[in-house]
Amino acid sequence: MKEPAVLLFAHGAREARWAEPFERVAELMRRTAPERPVELAYLEFLRPDMAEGVERLAARGATRIRVVPLFFGRGGHLRDSVPRLVAATRAAIPAVTIDVVEPAGEDEAVIQAVAAYCLRAADKL
Amino acid sequence: MKEPAVLLFAHGAREARWAEPFERVAELMRRTAPERPVELAYLEFLRPDMAEGVERLAARGATRIRVVPLFFGRGGHLRDSVPRLVAATRAAIPAVTIDVVEPAGEDEAVIQAVAAYCLRAADKL
Repeated sequence: MKEPAVLLFAHGAREARWAEPFERVAELMRRTAPERPVELAYLEFLRPDMAEGVERLAARGATRIRVVPLFFGRGGHLRDSVPRLVAATRAAIPAVTIDVVEPAGEDEAVIQAVAAYCLRAADKL
Repeated sequence: MKEPAVLLFAHGAREARWAEPFERVAELMRRTAPERPVELAYLEFLRPDMAEGVERLAARGATRIRVVPLFFGRGGHLRDSVPRLVAATRAAIPAVTIDVVEPAGEDEAVIQAVAAYCLRAADKL
């Protein structure tokens, strides 16, 4: 197993169908890097929540967990909700260390891929 | 001018900082394809809204407008809010034709870029 384990963290929605792109990201990561534990968790509506996601990774032996926010922009959820949930999860599950990186939507390569998609979509008949 | 013009449509948030990645996407598109009119619009909190964004493009001479949702997942906003706003905008601005494509977050290349970012983030010290 390669550490840190990754907890992909997304907003969540009432529709289970909403989670499909996030599940595709997780599946692709597992195929590309099978030795890296990867779980998905959600802020609201869908399960697991952050603490449950961290527990799943800890149950697989992870001691270091990196939270990767699958958000496009850096709004109130990343400023307030995520730090609060991380602090609560650290307190509840002290055996693991948890850190948080920049949201995926601010990565330059992600932005390039989104812009390229938009231009392809514009040219589509 | 190349048509259809593109209206990038994102959720919006209370923090103006939230819009930064979307503005980077729009800027990159304008640099890559300067002949294609590109505007951003938001579902809530930020301006312009969809009708205002369409008006901006129409004022530049666009007669065909393609809405590209900058959403990761296909939830209630894409199922309900976007079609409702598009219908209202078509009724308000009948001189333009408007269509809507799949959200950026469901594009395979975008998913690959997100997964690659997450794996790079996992390896970062």
